[in-house]
Amino acid sequence: MDRNVARQLMSATVDFDRPGKQIGVFHVPLSSHDDAWGVVPVPVAVISNGKGPTVILEGGNHGDEYEGPITLGELIRDLDPAKVSGRLIFIPAINQPAVLAAQRVSPVDGINMNRTFPGDPMGSTTRQIASYVNDVLFPMGDVFIDLHSGGSSLDIIPSAVIEPGRTPEQHAANVAAAMAFGAPIAVVIDNRGDPRTATAAAALAGMTVIGTEMAGGGTVSVDALALCRRGVRNVLAHLGVLPPDMAHTVAQPSRLYALSSRAHVIAEDDGVFEPIHRLGAEVGAGDLVGRIHFITQPARHPVELYARADGIVYGRRQPGRVRPGNCCLVVASPYESSPQ
Amino acid sequence: MDRNVARQLMSATVDFDRPGKQIGVFHVPLSSHDDAWGVVPVPVAVISNGKGPTVILEGGNHGDEYEGPITLGELIRDLDPAKVSGRLIFIPAINQPAVLAAQRVSPVDGINMNRTFPGDPMGSTTRQIASYVNDVLFPMGDVFIDLHSGGSSLDIIPSAVIEPGRTPEQHAANVAAAMAFGAPIAVVIDNRGDPRTATAAAALAGMTVIGTEMAGGGTVSVDALALCRRGVRNVLAHLGVLPPDMAHTVAQPSRLYALSSRAHVIAEDDGVFEPIHRLGAEVGAGDLVGRIHFITQPARHPVELYARADGIVYGRRQPGRVRPGNCCLVVASPYESSPQ
Amino acid sequence: MDRNVARQLMSATVDFDRPGKQIGVFHVPLSSHDDAWGVVPVPVAVISNGKGPTVILEGGNHGDEYEGPITLGELIRDLDPAKVSGRLIFIPAINQPAVLAAQRVSPVDGINMNRTFPGDPMGSTTRQIASYVNDVLFPMGDVFIDLHSGGSSLDIIPSAVIEPGRTPEQHAANVAAAMAFGAPIAVVIDNRGDPRTATAAAALAGMTVIGTEMAGGGTVSVDALALCRRGVRNVLAHLGVLPPDMAHTVAQPSRLYALSSRAHVIAEDDGVFEPIHRLGAEVGAGDLVGRIHFITQPARHPVELYARADGIVYGRRQPGRVRPGNCCLVVASPYESSPQ
Amino acid sequence: MDRNVARQLMSATVDFDRPGKQIGVFHVPLSSHDDAWGVVPVPVAVISNGKGPTVILEGGNHGDEYEGPITLGELIRDLDPAKVSGRLIFIPAINQPAVLAAQRVSPVDGINMNRTFPGDPMGSTTRQIASYVNDVLFPMGDVFIDLHSGGSSLDIIPSAVIEPGRTPEQHAANVAAAMAFGAPIAVVIDNRGDPRTATAAAALAGMTVIGTEMAGGGTVSVDALALCRRGVRNVLAHLGVLPPDMAHTVAQPSRLYALSSRAHVIAEDDGVFEPIHRLGAEVGAGDLVGRIHFITQPARHPVELYARADGIVYGRRQPGRVRPGNCCLVVASPYESSPQ
Amino acid sequence: MDRNVARQLMSATVDFDRPGKQIGVFHVPLSSHDDAWGVVPVPVAVISNGKGPTVILEGGNHGDEYEGPITLGELIRDLDPAKVSGRLIFIPAINQPAVLAAQRVSPVDGINMNRTFPGDPMGSTTRQIASYVNDVLFPMGDVFIDLHSGGSSLDIIPSAVIEPGRTPEQHAANVAAAMAFGAPIAVVIDNRGDPRTATAAAALAGMTVIGTEMAGGGTVSVDALALCRRGVRNVLAHLGVLPPDMAHTVAQPSRLYALSSRAHVIAEDDGVFEPIHRLGAEVGAGDLVGRIHFITQPARHPVELYARADGIVYGRRQPGRVRPGNCCLVVASPYESSPQ
Amino acid sequence: MDRNVARQLMSATVDFDRPGKQIGVFHVPLSSHDDAWGVVPVPVAVISNGKGPTVILEGGNHGDEYEGPITLGELIRDLDPAKVSGRLIFIPAINQPAVLAAQRVSPVDGINMNRTFPGDPMGSTTRQIASYVNDVLFPMGDVFIDLHSGGSSLDIIPSAVIEPGRTPEQHAANVAAAMAFGAPIAVVIDNRGDPRTATAAAALAGMTVIGTEMAGGGTVSVDALALCRRGVRNVLAHLGVLPPDMAHTVAQPSRLYALSSRAHVIAEDDGVFEPIHRLGAEVGAGDLVGRIHFITQPARHPVELYARADGIVYGRRQPGRVRPGNCCLVVASPYESSPQ
Repeated sequence: MDRNVARQLMSATVDFDRPGKQIGVFHVPLSSHDDAWGVVPVPVAVISNGKGPTVILEGGNHGDEYEGPITLGELIRDLDPAKVSGRLIFIPAINQPAVLAAQRVSPVDGINMNRTFPGDPMGSTTRQIASYVNDVLFPMGDVFIDLHSGGSSLDIIPSAVIEPGRTPEQHAANVAAAMAFGAPIAVVIDNRGDPRTATAAAALAGMTVIGTEMAGGGTVSVDALALCRRGVRNVLAHLGVLPPDMAHTVAQPSRLYALSSRAHVIAEDDGVFEPIHRLGAEVGAGDLVGRIHFITQPARHPVELYARADGIVYGRRQPGRVRPGNCCLVVASPYESSPQ
Repeated sequence: MDRNVARQLMSATVDFDRPGKQIGVFHVPLSSHDDAWGVVPVPVAVISNGKGPTVILEGGNHGDEYEGPITLGELIRDLDPAKVSGRLIFIPAINQPAVLAAQRVSPVDGINMNRTFPGDPMGSTTRQIASYVNDVLFPMGDVFIDLHSGGSSLDIIPSAVIEPGRTPEQHAANVAAAMAFGAPIAVVIDNRGDPRTATAAAALAGMTVIGTEMAGGGTVSVDALALCRRGVRNVLAHLGVLPPDMAHTVAQPSRLYALSSRAHVIAEDDGVFEPIHRLGAEVGAGDLVGRIHFITQPARHPVELYARADGIVYGRRQPGRVRPGNCCLVVASPYESSPQ
Repeated sequence: MDRNVARQLMSATVDFDRPGKQIGVFHVPLSSHDDAWGVVPVPVAVISNGKGPTVILEGGNHGDEYEGPITLGELIRDLDPAKVSGRLIFIPAINQPAVLAAQRVSPVDGINMNRTFPGDPMGSTTRQIASYVNDVLFPMGDVFIDLHSGGSSLDIIPSAVIEPGRTPEQHAANVAAAMAFGAPIAVVIDNRGDPRTATAAAALAGMTVIGTEMAGGGTVSVDALALCRRGVRNVLAHLGVLPPDMAHTVAQPSRLYALSSRAHVIAEDDGVFEPIHRLGAEVGAGDLVGRIHFITQPARHPVELYARADGIVYGRRQPGRVRPGNCCLVVASPYESSPQ
Repeated sequence: MDRNVARQLMSATVDFDRPGKQIGVFHVPLSSHDDAWGVVPVPVAVISNGKGPTVILEGGNHGDEYEGPITLGELIRDLDPAKVSGRLIFIPAINQPAVLAAQRVSPVDGINMNRTFPGDPMGSTTRQIASYVNDVLFPMGDVFIDLHSGGSSLDIIPSAVIEPGRTPEQHAANVAAAMAFGAPIAVVIDNRGDPRTATAAAALAGMTVIGTEMAGGGTVSVDALALCRRGVRNVLAHLGVLPPDMAHTVAQPSRLYALSSRAHVIAEDDGVFEPIHRLGAEVGAGDLVGRIHFITQPARHPVELYARADGIVYGRRQPGRVRPGNCCLVVASPYESSPQ
Repeated sequence: MDRNVARQLMSATVDFDRPGKQIGVFHVPLSSHDDAWGVVPVPVAVISNGKGPTVILEGGNHGDEYEGPITLGELIRDLDPAKVSGRLIFIPAINQPAVLAAQRVSPVDGINMNRTFPGDPMGSTTRQIASYVNDVLFPMGDVFIDLHSGGSSLDIIPSAVIEPGRTPEQHAANVAAAMAFGAPIAVVIDNRGDPRTATAAAALAGMTVIGTEMAGGGTVSVDALALCRRGVRNVLAHLGVLPPDMAHTVAQPSRLYALSSRAHVIAEDDGVFEPIHRLGAEVGAGDLVGRIHFITQPARHPVELYARADGIVYGRRQPGRVRPGNCCLVVASPYESSPQ
Repeated sequence: MDRNVARQLMSATVDFDRPGKQIGVFHVPLSSHDDAWGVVPVPVAVISNGKGPTVILEGGNHGDEYEGPITLGELIRDLDPAKVSGRLIFIPAINQPAVLAAQRVSPVDGINMNRTFPGDPMGSTTRQIASYVNDVLFPMGDVFIDLHSGGSSLDIIPSAVIEPGRTPEQHAANVAAAMAFGAPIAVVIDNRGDPRTATAAAALAGMTVIGTEMAGGGTVSVDALALCRRGVRNVLAHLGVLPPDMAHTVAQPSRLYALSSRAHVIAEDDGVFEPIHRLGAEVGAGDLVGRIHFITQPARHPVELYARADGIVYGRRQPGRVRPGNCCLVVASPYESSPQ
């Protein structure tokens, strides 16, 4: 479409420049069979006070990851604006249709929001939201916090995620923020170089970026939620937006890992995946790490799966049923840098 | 249909009266759009040797519960018939279409096999299979072992399940077999009195019955699988079908629990369920045990959920997303009997 | 299933014998892929006081008919038990899954509840509910009020519906109750003799029965809702369960009509239906009452439709799109009886 | 349901007792979300003249088999009643919803009509139709002609099909009628003893029964249609309902075959089926008759399939894609009887 | 795609430059699973005679809006070319797949055609059609008439719709054409500034543009159809393409309204919407205009909805069931301009 | 997306520059609800030896066309690299998800791969694969062989397909390669000028291009598979990549045909298509070539279809059920050129 005609169709019921606390919605017009003149209502909140950086906190990019949205909802309701130095923009359920559907991808257009940045203001709903975030919100922000969990298909060690910086300075800031989160481990993840994630787009926009992976399995983890509640406050204190006394003491610094190009153990068969280890176990390249069973053909022996990198079992597939191409296991390798 | 005309349409490629090991299939005729003259092939194996009871071992009644089918497949492949005293009939993936689809219910007719006994030989596929089990196999059997896990919607403490016996003798035999399994706990579950389960039908047929619940979440649990492998061998040794040296030493006897009519904590709201406790925690009636969050409406405070019975958190809903009527939590209460 | 084993699996959180007002639910156990141990929660309320008949008021038998459920909800919340003489059992959304889905039929089992009486306690969800109503509730009741609207596919003149009685006495009572409702017209409808409706089952059980059709089109009609609110109170006052001063004055008695076997004008073509008359217009057998247009084939002339009976245009198909077999128009003929 | 209450809900616009030609419909009431008061319109025609047997001719039992319905439609339009001695009842598209959907099974209730006899007048649409045929039409009939083709999943040698008679006399009559059809071959098919087919129900009702299989692949075969047109006329002439000069000369008598319990070659693997022979080829038990290729895993060698009976390749699976349980090939064995 | 390679794939069976009346189709190639070498056949008609403007008349942009397509079909069949001065290009069912499916959006690609202009000749079916209209037809045209109704989700006062002009001259021409239509009201609607509608694209192309909203509810309105039949002829007479005597006398000039940014009343809750007023009622900002009932939770009080602008109730949601974001009500405000 | 950021996300486990035989996969990252970190595994093989052209052989562009993939799989497994002069790159199941689903279009994104070239590295799965082929593989290649069959919707005379060359030299090379294939006929097909096919993109890239159509009906044809096996070897020998003794003698040169703009016979009605001729029959423009029957309305006479060009019946629709726009028949006309 002619860029002279293209425009943002989304609107907000909050004023990003007003001090204090506001809770509102984005209206994303959606003309569907069921509702010709309706909107997708994406919740948004702003807490602004005094001087300080603008931090954008996103949850619900995938609709089946819950620790982040719960944590953000509690902050929205509980945080006293007087405690804030700067501005917090909360989007706790940015992919609202996916959240209602408990799906990774939007039921409106079938798109994974985290593979659609920088979006398109004239595109389908998910693309419109991504464009609004990228083109309207990112220019307002200094820091982007994107709270993910493993989702329905993965169970992952609760951890901070480090987006690779596009400059040494950005990278150092990203690592420092991740360390401040205070998880047992922090992992550099580059999503196979895909530039279409929210965090990659935020890094491209020059922001400090921090992510998380909080357990998964499509459920709410008691432990991961406790960690997420502490970690977000820790990061905001680290950034100076919350006072230091709102941070929690972190017993020991996060160990650093990274996902290499050999991290993923991919199924080549159609069956049921049995992992051999619990999450966190140390494995070496070539070790037996799983089997695929053929339970409708009991005469057939299972196939064995082997690690392709040294490190720890960082995540594993949640559904037992696997098909060729499914990621069964993820091995995180020690990260060889001096991040601070 | 006129019972004079009704007949079993299923056939087996194994001979239940032949000694030794056979691995075959049941053919359940299914005339669908995609295959007018095809069959549903349900795997079956028979290992028979010498004198002793006939034990029917079932897995895959629900298609997303894997520890049992894996254990049965290993026994089918590995067990030396010379070790057996009696007859083992294995049906490791009885609801084969559900297993392939990784669904609790059959994709062929949408039926939960475990709510369809005693089945119907002229009914849809699931009903035909249930009828064959009830009318052809049960009369051959002395003991019925039905291996379940929590499935996609529940995460449960790995445990033996005690089907209430219809006589004191049958009940005692069921409890003894469950204790022999050697799980940390054993739980009496009556499925709200529903007579349509496989185990209720087996009890009605006069068999000794033992069940399990092995973790869940639609995944394969490293720990539950290890327990299941030991437990099935232990039960078969307890029954005298396997030699005593194939049993594993059980450190301490299973604690006994039961699900009362107040065991289930049911959601009345549409949101995301946060459990407060890990599985196994002790709770009392009236205790706060969970919250339902409204993550697309962050201004709204979460709703609280309370236990309705004293006991331990035995299971919980796996998917975070809940709707009214969903079972969020199950509390198992201490069982007040002297089972042996 | 052996009737010795069959039993009601539904349970209620209300006590039908307790005086005063209670609002609760029926729990219909439903073991689905998404919720192995969940229930379908069907709302129920009881208002009981002093002596008088027991009246069962049902709404939401079809999930896309709203005037009845709104009216019942208001009575449940607003009615002072002290005003009641007898017992009111409200089931305002009896097909709860259909109501949530805004569908005529249940999304759980695909069944139209109003074609499934007397139900089956061991059947699928809709059959279990119907059985509970038929086998547990009907024996408690003297009068059954079943509030329907036209639903998504029909737009109907708001009217009371007279279930044909199985005896002259029952028929007279049904007509009298329908007249008390106070709609402009009351219509005898026998659903082509189908014995599987809730009202036919209630008549078979010997109750006085009254139904309604309140506009339709899947929407809430301002006028029909006002009529429904008045009509239900009028009937309850007529029955002596509410005091006379809660009834509304009815300006003139309802005119009586009936649907004959020639009432329905059925499409034989695939196109778009244009009605010629507004609802209520008088037509004679053989009159042109509609056309079917072929709007994707503009060279083709429309087909004409003719009335098959004398009377008034009582209802018409809401969706413009029609296919062979669709009911386009319903003509109600004057009813030739002296109902009182 | 109480049999005192059960009744036929279907009605016909034709009068089966009136001489001459009538073309009408059965109305099967269906109250769906899209059409609360609509019907399924099943076409029917009657041609009656003078004395002679009543022959019921059915097409469209499966909705993707076309030679029979086309042949019946032509007879309905073209046949001069004066040529008829007796009564012809045509139901050319008995499973009308399946025919419109081009599916083997009905889209209304998901049921294969040919596995649902004797039906149920209070059941779902397909069961209602089957009950009407079984309970209302069969008692009027002397002969039942059921015209099938291979359908979407099978390609079959065009042939007459012999329903096994329940008495020697019935069997002989069935064979004689099949021979009169004049196809190159005639095959005894018992559908694995399933009593739920239309032809099995007709045999149970004491009628003379003849079936066909006319090519398949979900298409219209030029050759099979020509054969079907001739064959139906030949049978009607054989029965004396049409004059002898409307029969076609048959060059040579049909060869007789039967499907034994070893006729079907069933896939055990998930891949693409390659047949080795064309239809009609002679094969022996143990011969290589096909391969299953794994085209997404080109390193894997195909699996071989072998015939299990001696005879000719009578039919084969049409879709290349196969899964375990699919019938790949059907071998018809010479039939060892003296049919006349 | 390289614009050097991109090309229009659609073709027409009519010649736009030939005088007289032609009825034909556009062929839009569509290679689907069901039809590798098929087309989507979009009906088109041309009536051309003498000198005068070219008017493009579109119906069926949304597939569930019928008054326009019926009116255009009648003109196509009935209009004598000798009456025409200029050229009429009719596209009565431009989104032919949506019309057959009775859906707002195309079932082929899930796209709302009226949010896809200017289209893409190498895109999916709906985009190809939009591109053809925009790039091939619009350059031929002087005036664009786009006939909409409320569709399945809305019920709207039958009215002419004024597309905001991009110049004062264009705006005045649009207003004048809308006034000529002769509806009781005419409403300026800018679709929240969305440039992707057919009328916005036509305005951008410099044409005079007129739209309509004709009732809705997915049905055919007796009154709106009568108005549409008159209005289209009135506009064509106003434009000089039809003779003045084909226009209908309009009793009084249309009242003018506009939809402001506060016109829409959006649901924030999940329930059933009850409107308080009939269409056309006057309301003020802050007035109670509706309620959302929770009919499966009768203890819960309904939520109230308020108007956000002064004006009349112009439209309302048809389906009673609402979810957050649904448009429940639309208030049109008096339009403050002197349009002529 | 900014082209500076866009990049290929696919990776290969084979090294295109290594001599000898390698069998591996492309990994196409796909982050779906069921598998957040998984891949689509597209099989690939390389056989490289000595000097000679690089030939890219593609099968499975459509997932329901099997002769090509089977032939390529056999070559991958059986071909001795020492026989090769040059490099063969095999992609036997390029649309792997479509192949597994047995669908023409990909179930992942609903796209027909053969209407999506040149693809998009940042687009959905099918677009990513097309981009990789176009942007990474085509620059390596000299010749492109694209093996199609008729697929589920068409049955076609097995034949070589000639892509129109963009220069006389390219065209001559394409014709020569097609003649070398050795099918009874070779047909010039330009897909209505669509530039989005794999072969059009390959021609644009300057490669020599050859295609096939091998029977169809979604099945594996005994005869077409035999032809395909011979033809591919013949072409590779013609190109000098295989030795001459691996070619088969071709009895007589292929007759040449082309599809004109009048080749396709398109249905205008909704019914069942009866072809009048077998494939290969000679027909003239205006000849009766088919009928559309209305088998649910037997009183209605069939509609006749006529050829629009002189030539042979080259292909026909496989499913009997047709709707307006479906291609029923394709007539290939003699091709008037001197191809060599």
